[in-house]
This record gives sequence, C-alpha cells and structure tokens, in this order.
Amino acid sequence: MSLTAPLRGVVPPVCTPLDDRGEVDTASLARLVGHLVDGGVHALFALGSTSEVAYLTDDRRATALKTVVTAAAGRVPVLAGVIDTTTPRVLAHARTAAELGADALVATAPFYTRTHPNEIAGHFRRLRADVDLPLFAYDIPVAVHSKLSATLIRELAEDGTLAGLKDSSGDEGGLRRLLVELGGRGGRDRGPAPHFTVLTGSELTVDAALLAGADGVVPGLGNVDPAGYVRLYDAARAGDWTLAAREQERLVELFALVDAGPEQEMGRSSSALGSFKEALRLLGVIDRGATAFPQIPLSAASAASVAERLRGAGLPPVR
Amino acid sequence: MSLTAPLRGVVPPVCTPLDDRGEVDTASLARLVGHLVDGGVHALFALGSTSEVAYLTDDRRATALKTVVTAAAGRVPVLAGVIDTTTPRVLAHARTAAELGADALVATAPFYTRTHPNEIAGHFRRLRADVDLPLFAYDIPVAVHSKLSATLIRELAEDGTLAGLKDSSGDEGGLRRLLVELGGRGGRDRGPAPHFTVLTGSELTVDAALLAGADGVVPGLGNVDPAGYVRLYDAARAGDWTLAAREQERLVELFALVDAGPEQEMGRSSSALGSFKEALRLLGVIDRGATAFPQIPLSAASAASVAERLRGAGLPPVR
Amino acid sequence: MSLTAPLRGVVPPVCTPLDDRGEVDTASLARLVGHLVDGGVHALFALGSTSEVAYLTDDRRATALKTVVTAAAGRVPVLAGVIDTTTPRVLAHARTAAELGADALVATAPFYTRTHPNEIAGHFRRLRADVDLPLFAYDIPVAVHSKLSATLIRELAEDGTLAGLKDSSGDEGGLRRLLVELGGRGGRDRGPAPHFTVLTGSELTVDAALLAGADGVVPGLGNVDPAGYVRLYDAARAGDWTLAAREQERLVELFALVDAGPEQEMGRSSSALGSFKEALRLLGVIDRGATAFPQIPLSAASAASVAERLRGAGLPPVR
Amino acid sequence: MSLTAPLRGVVPPVCTPLDDRGEVDTASLARLVGHLVDGGVHALFALGSTSEVAYLTDDRRATALKTVVTAAAGRVPVLAGVIDTTTPRVLAHARTAAELGADALVATAPFYTRTHPNEIAGHFRRLRADVDLPLFAYDIPVAVHSKLSATLIRELAEDGTLAGLKDSSGDEGGLRRLLVELGGRGGRDRGPAPHFTVLTGSELTVDAALLAGADGVVPGLGNVDPAGYVRLYDAARAGDWTLAAREQERLVELFALVDAGPEQEMGRSSSALGSFKEALRLLGVIDRGATAFPQIPLSAASAASVAERLRGAGLPPVR
Repeated sequence: MSLTAPLRGVVPPVCTPLDDRGEVDTASLARLVGHLVDGGVHALFALGSTSEVAYLTDDRRATALKTVVTAAAGRVPVLAGVIDTTTPRVLAHARTAAELGADALVATAPFYTRTHPNEIAGHFRRLRADVDLPLFAYDIPVAVHSKLSATLIRELAEDGTLAGLKDSSGDEGGLRRLLVELGGRGGRDRGPAPHFTVLTGSELTVDAALLAGADGVVPGLGNVDPAGYVRLYDAARAGDWTLAAREQERLVELFALVDAGPEQEMGRSSSALGSFKEALRLLGVIDRGATAFPQIPLSAASAASVAERLRGAGLPPVR
Repeated sequence: MSLTAPLRGVVPPVCTPLDDRGEVDTASLARLVGHLVDGGVHALFALGSTSEVAYLTDDRRATALKTVVTAAAGRVPVLAGVIDTTTPRVLAHARTAAELGADALVATAPFYTRTHPNEIAGHFRRLRADVDLPLFAYDIPVAVHSKLSATLIRELAEDGTLAGLKDSSGDEGGLRRLLVELGGRGGRDRGPAPHFTVLTGSELTVDAALLAGADGVVPGLGNVDPAGYVRLYDAARAGDWTLAAREQERLVELFALVDAGPEQEMGRSSSALGSFKEALRLLGVIDRGATAFPQIPLSAASAASVAERLRGAGLPPVR
Repeated sequence: MSLTAPLRGVVPPVCTPLDDRGEVDTASLARLVGHLVDGGVHALFALGSTSEVAYLTDDRRATALKTVVTAAAGRVPVLAGVIDTTTPRVLAHARTAAELGADALVATAPFYTRTHPNEIAGHFRRLRADVDLPLFAYDIPVAVHSKLSATLIRELAEDGTLAGLKDSSGDEGGLRRLLVELGGRGGRDRGPAPHFTVLTGSELTVDAALLAGADGVVPGLGNVDPAGYVRLYDAARAGDWTLAAREQERLVELFALVDAGPEQEMGRSSSALGSFKEALRLLGVIDRGATAFPQIPLSAASAASVAERLRGAGLPPVR
Repeated sequence: MSLTAPLRGVVPPVCTPLDDRGEVDTASLARLVGHLVDGGVHALFALGSTSEVAYLTDDRRATALKTVVTAAAGRVPVLAGVIDTTTPRVLAHARTAAELGADALVATAPFYTRTHPNEIAGHFRRLRADVDLPLFAYDIPVAVHSKLSATLIRELAEDGTLAGLKDSSGDEGGLRRLLVELGGRGGRDRGPAPHFTVLTGSELTVDAALLAGADGVVPGLGNVDPAGYVRLYDAARAGDWTLAAREQERLVELFALVDAGPEQEMGRSSSALGSFKEALRLLGVIDRGATAFPQIPLSAASAASVAERLRGAGLPPVR
C-alpha cells in the first residue's frame, strides 16, 4: 500500500525472531506482524535498529523484509531501514527494499567514517533521486555519532527530499524547536512542508511528543505491547492528556524490562533487545527469545525478571 | 522564608546584571527580582549557571545573593547555587549562603576532577550534614561532565539527603523513569520520598515535564518572560494541556533569541546569556546587557535580532 | 604469500582509486601497488579506512582486493580489512577475502550497535574460528566509538585468537602500557605471545612507537611517500633515533596536506583522503584524485595547496 | 628565583599531603619538596591537578603554595596552578600566587561554562596583562572538556602571551605537529617563539616527547620517583634513546600502581592520587597517604599492592 501523507500513529520497529542457526524465523516473524497489526498499529518499520538490522546479513535482511511485507498484506504500510555506512552501500539496500515491496525507506547519516552536513545532505538527496520511494531520515546519534541539525532537516523537508524524520536523538528540546519551526503553533500545518512527518523514537515520552505536535512514535517496546501504545496515541489524539500520561506511565514501568541483563555481563542494547524478544516468547508470539551473535543471551534469572515485569503491566505470560 | 515542601512552580535562575567594571549592578538586580516576583514566579534561584556564577568572584557572589535575598524580602524563597569543584570548596560557599539568608542550596556533582558515584554520594551527604539547609542536586552534565544516576537520586531522596533535584541533563526519558519510580502513577505522591521536589531545567519542554509529574521549572528564559512561564505552569496545573502547549510554543519561538550571537564568534553560552541580558535591558529592567569577561559581547546586529524576537513574542522593547 | 610472524615494518593502507562512475580504477590501483612495493613497504593493507572501505559496495571491495593481491604478486603479504557492523556481516567479508587470496584479516569491534567487552571477545573468537587466516584487531574508536582494552587484547593475544593489533586509538600512553605488559622491557620478546604484532596507526609519532617496541606502522600518508616511512623505519631499526626523528618531522610537515579542504565545506576524513589521492595523481601514480560519494571533492585551490606541500617535502608533482 | 627561558627538564606536580582534619600537612609537604629537589628535578609545579588543587579551599591553596616556595628556597623555580572556572576567579588566584612568590603561573581554559576559542584567547591575554609573571597554558581536556588548538597556542606563543604549554591532552600526534610548526626541524629553535617551553604531561611517553623536541615533562609519578624521571631526561638529553626508553619502561611498570583502587569503588583520579600518596608514605616521605574528601581512600589491600609495585621498581618501602 502506498503511504498516506503525512504518516501518523504508532509504527513499531519490528523485532526479527531468529532460529537456532541464526536464520530468520519467518513463521514467528509473521505471527509478530499479526500481533502488531491486531494491536492496531498504523505502520511497521522493518530492518530498524530494534530489528537487529546491524546483525543481519544481506540475505537475512531480504528474508525479514519480505516476510514483513507479505504478512502485512497491505493492511498497513511497511517502512524499510536501509542501514549501512555510506551512500553507495545504502543505495544497494534501498534498491532491494523497493523490489521487495517496501512503502518507504528509512536511512541514517553516514557512519563509521567522519562526515559533514554537506555530505549528509548529498547523501539523502542522492538516495531520494535514485530510488523512487518516500524517504525518512533516521536521527540516531547513539548509533551513528552525528546529529542531524534542525537546519538540515528543514531544508530537506522543504525541498521534498524527505518525507519525514524518525527522531531517536533524545534531544527533546531540539525536537520541540524543530516542530515549532516546521509547523507553526496551533495549526500544526507544517508550513512550507505540509506533508512532512515527524516520528519520535523516544518511547518514554510519547505523550509529550504528541502534545508538542509530533505525528507518531516508533517504539521498540511497541513490539511487546502494541495495544498500549495505540491507546496512548488515541488518548492523545482525543485530547485526553491525562489518560495519555497514565498509559505512558504504565509503559514506562513495563520498559524497565530492558534492564534485565546485568551491565557487567552484556551491552545495554543486548539486554534491551533480549528482553523484548523474551517478552514476545513469553507472550506466545515468537518461538525463541534469542538475539543475534555476538550479543550475550539473557540468563534464566534475567528472563524471569522479564516475566515479572510483564505480569506487573497486565500482560501475563502464556508460557 | 522557609521552603514549602515540596517546592513547586516557576523558579527562574536570576541573571546577574553587571556594571562597566564587572561589578554586580545591585540596583538593576533588585529591579530584576521585582520583575520576576511581579511576574508571579514561585521562588528564585540565585547563583546558578544562568547567573554567571562561574564568572563571579566570591565577593561578587556574596553581593549578588545578598541583593536577591533583600529584594525578594521574603515574598518567595531564594535558592542559592553553591557551585565549585569539590566538597571542601562547595562547603565554603554553602556556609556563606546560609549566613546571607538563602532558603536552600543547589549543588552539582564534583567537576574538573574525574569523579565516581560513591564520591558524589559522599559529597551530597557531607553538604547536607554540615550546613542546615534543604539541599537540591543540580544535574547538569553539560557543565560537570557526569550524570547523576536515577539510582543515586532515589537513594539520596529516600534517606533525606536531598530535598529535590534540578534536572538540566536533557535526558527526558531518564527523567520520566525517575518520576515514575519516585512517584507512583496518578497519585504522584512521591512514594517513599513524599516531599521530594523535581524541577526541570529543560525550558523548551515544560508542558511535557509537568504532564509527566515534575513539580516545576527553572527556566533561564524566565528572566525575560516570567509571566509566560507562570501562565504555562498555571494552565498545566489546571489540566488545560492544550493551553499549556500553546504558551510553551510561544516561549519556544522567543527562545530563538539565544542564537543571536554567531557561532563562529562566541560560545553558545555567551550568546544565550548575552541575549537574555540584552532582552532585559531592552525591556527596561536592567541598565546594561553586558556579560562577564571573557564572554564575547553581542554585536549591535545581534542585539537588534533580540529586539525583533521580543516584538514577535509580544514583549515590545521600551528602549 | 603467508605472513611471517610477527609481521614487521611499513604496511600502508592502500588508497582505492576510482573512475568517473565511482568504480574501482584497477589500472591505477595496480600502479599504486607498484609504487608502494617499489618504495620498500613490507606489507599492504587493503580495504582499510583509508581505502574508503566504508564507501565501497561488496562488488567494489572484491575488485579492489583482487587487484591488490594480483598486483602484489606475492612480493609482500596483503592484509584485508573486513569492516562491517557485526560478526555475521564481517564473516561474509572474511570468507570472500580468504577466497580472494588475502594473507590476513583486519577487523574492528562491532559498531553502530552499542557493544560490550564480552561481545567483542566473542566477535574476534568467532572470526578466528570460522575463517582460517591470521586475524588482526583494528582499534579505531574514532570510527567504531569503543576502545579495545589492554586486558582484552592481552587475553586474545595469549590464547592465539589474535595475530596482532593495529592501534589507531591515538592513546599512546595506553599503547606504551600494553607494549610493556606484552613484551617485557629490553628483550621485547612479547612474553606469553611471542608472535604477536603491534602496529601503530599514529602516523605522526612512528619514531616514538618504534622506540617503545611497536613492530611497525600503518600510515595513510605512506601512500604518498612510502619510501619516507621505510627510511624512518630503517633508521629506527638501526637505532639511529635522531635520523628517525628527522624523517618523521619531514613527514609531519608533509602530513599538513590533509588540511587542504576547508573545515566549513567538508569532513576531515574527506579532506585527508582527497588530499592523499590528489597527491598520488600529481605524482603520476593514479589517474584521478576523486573520492567516493558523498565525500566533497577538493576545490582547485585545495588541490594547489597539495601540490605546494609535495614540493616542500621534496616530492615534486609530475603533472 | 626567576624562570630561565625556556624552562627545561622534569617539573613534578607536587602532591599535597593532608593531615587527619584535611588541612595541609606542611611538614610532610616540605619533606616532599626536599625529596623532589634531592631527586634532581628542575622545577616544581604546585597546585596542579595532582596537587588536588580542585579539592583545596583558598586558604589551603595558599598554605600549600607558601610551603612549597619556602621549602624550594630558590633552588628551583616554582610554577603555581591558578585553577578556577573563569578569568575573574583565576585572576584572584593569580594575584595571590604572585604575592606568595610563585615564579610562573599555570592556567587552564575556562571550564564548567561552555567556552569558545575567542574567549580562551581573551582569557589568557587578560591573565598575562594583569599579573606580571610568565604564564603557561595547561591543556587538559579530561578536566576542562575543551582542547586548546595548535593555532591558538602558536598565536599566543608568538605574541608573547604564553611562556609555555603544559600538554596533558594525550594527543601526541597533535603535539608533534605543534612542535614541528613551532620549532623547525633539527634546530628546534622554536622559530618565531624562541623562548617558548613545551612540557608534556604524558608521563608514559616522555622519551617520545623529548625525541620529538619537547622541553620537559610534568609527571605525577615523578612525586614517587623523581630520580627516575631525571635519569630518563638526562639520557634523552645525552641522545641515548635506548637508555631513555629502558628507564621509561621501568616507570611504566611502576605507573601500574595507579590501578590500586578498584574501579567499582572509586574514581580513577582517586585511585591514582591515593596510590601516589600511599607510595610516598611507604617511602617515608610523608606521614599520611590520605586524599582529600570526597575521594574514596585506598583499602589495606590496595595499599599492599602499592608496596608490591614499589618493590618491583626497586624502591623498597621503609615502613
């Protein structure tokens, strides 16, 4: 399906279930897509950071994307991450994503290499020119170690290069400034870039982002509790901010499951991704909670703490 | 006056007007205090980062604090920053602040030296033990280059070391987690630390912080438009989040005055502080817009852009 | 040819000349290999950061590596960079490199994702287990944003996982500690890891690294002046430290060509790589000085400054 | 005594022994000065980072400096650190240092506040203009979180603002470029700034710095083993680089005592300073090994590991 403009709502970055050889478990992934669509989400983001895209070979990336597109079956649009170090490598992923039926592309700034705003602008413009799909900029300094400036985003929004922004920078003050500059107060008409979409990746402050005029959210935790994020989104759209905040607070408590893996044993990313997948396993959505190598697996004790958190949030494990 | 517990509301960090020799312009400072109290603010924070505390000799710090306490005249409480590298030096400032009539102290983690959570905990405990005033932790990694962890803050809140937190970390997700952990959802009773105050220093997302359960805000821009922040606070307290967001957006637009000084010529801090002071001069509150040496002064063109921003926000210059 | 153990000497990271469509210019690359081997270098490092590996599609990587292996023709060993985000993707590159005739592999820690020492250890162990080639760890925090600890390097050196380290961390004090711990003073027998190679990527302090017991250097500038680095290495091996320092100083002056591109226009990496390639063009070694997209090309004025630097270092342009 | 120009040699940053109330133990400090001067050092640096200047109240700073000046008794020059956040506060320390008989001042860039090269330049120029003592810039990004650029240092060297640089940046490549630019190759005549002194604070690579043309070193470890650093310096001056490297390697092994305190219990700075002081106590130079509050003291086991290291380096404890 083609993207509505602007894209709005809850757009979870879809976890990639793996089998015991590290291959994509397509049956589990299809069930996960069903779980998300049934939960009411508005679109899906395949091959994002939460999808462990950095750990997937090109073949596995293709399998994962194909599976998500097929399982979504046109009910919601599918955005595809095209994550690689620089333009020539990203272009290769973008062409594959287009062939596999993605409805939009999500690309970061160049990484590994040190880059420059002029180079980042050229990067996004070339991607947009060479592959005919709406393009979202993915601002994620924790991964790529540069920040997309508001000036650059506005320029690329106004000249039509970008269809939107996924802001995982954690800089909520900067996002607020961008939203005010883009959208005008009150009306939120996005001024000179009326169809530009702003999605926040800050899953703990979604009520705040929506109050500030963001169009939606890309919550990793939305894999586990898509219906919760949809309730939060709906409450915000209805102007019931107190209800939105209550739902956000429940999700903040649930989010604590990302601390399941001890810091001395594994990376924060492995702990978070492992806990999301373990939660999905406990909820009966996917078959195995394993993350991709070389991430450290959760211990049995860590997995038990995930189960505890699920119960606390009203999502009792079924196994 | 003694602090109500918990402290709530708008607590601007008071700018320190200077004369042409770099001495504190006490007449201007007293007028500024009047401007703030008349604007409806709930407390004053003297000797904070926005007060240029890092640029003031001990004598000038004393003069500034004395002036604020006298001008406040018990109408609102006065918090005093006690900013220095480590405990022995901070203690000296703390004793002076107590003698000069401060109602509470605001201290950062040690800086210049590399520190450790165990050392930071000892630091705050010693300050609390040795000077009998409520103590606020000031989390400002951009200045001190370490972050106060939620675990540490909770421990020091629950054992009574800290009366509150001023969070200028910019980590809104972390703040949200802390608020949920401290306060419980809905009730916001701060659980085991019922009188603990959480103030945000993120002046562009105050509506969001209040929606999340923060008690108030310490806005540098509140020097220029205290009444605006009070309106925002009142709207939030009344549950009118749409009105709060509109007021916040007006303040976000006004905030753009901090970019008055060109990045190639001066630091971001000098530009922001210079523009706040120039705005206060243009509004007739203080006599000179000068910042402390070695900050670079705003050019005439930069000052003109400040005037323009004031007009745009409905605060026309009077000179 | 197989690697002597330990590898010693000057091991330039080979630039990748490109044609006007961005494809590898194999004729120029073969000439560059000849230029380096004729300059006396002891091995070649293909597909490193200076080779613009982050900008090369998989096909171009294969072409570049094949060309270097063929042109080297067994005269010196060829190390191949296998640079990608995580183990599964790096393994794919490693298998290709083995098929194409590389004599050793050079891999970084995982990047893009946040990682952990336990995960990094697993990463190198898996690479070593799955592909039967000597493995070098590439410590380059400026690119991957984590630092390999001395503890980890020693562990992986002593258990035979690693054949060596390429240290581009810039932490010369840490390198000195590692060398003392590894090698014992004086004898420099590398104690429990007698065949372990330590190469520095700090091309401005090679005399110092050799004095400290490093085995060799991987200098980007060595593309332009391989004979200079070989003279420096030979002087050091002969114990003529004053001569080594003089040669290093000449190379430090030449190195200033990396500043050819203005900081406001392009990234530091583009300026450095563009100037190396422009210098190679001016010296008649390669046909075009172009860097890969989206790097900003050097202006004519910048190129002229490269020519000036070459003349100053006694390397007059031939075009 | 007045400074010879340029200052050359071993200039240890003098530890500040404390009594059980945290006051300066002047008898121990005088003995430490004797230990250093007897060890052959060429000057003393009081009130530096290793002196715990950040932990000393103004009174204690004065006591420490007075004690060092008196004990040095004109045998070697005394440089005084004037460490504080910005110019007005640093000036107050500088005037005191001049009154107390310091021979030169050592100042960092502004810290706590975000600063700018233009502001840093103004800062050093004002210090030089207002207090008539030779001024050294102290480049220590780990403490002040900005780096002094080579461009700035050269400008301030050439216009006479600075008498020298103490480089604790750890950027040895940058230092090499600066030395080449300042001094010309071979001759090392410092070109347009013939009397400019460059001291390295990188105590593990002193042989390298001297080979590169630095004038001397400011080694924290020099408190413990001044004679070792003097031997290293003398070997380098005599052109016996192999001997210099052997001595450096012995000192690198001794330096491992800084890891005495476990990372999970205390900061790296506390561990290093605590181990230097414990070593001085074990060697009979000072009475107590205590560091200033809130640093965590070394445990008995940690202290024992310091004794072990001393023995290994041929410096047997006397208690």
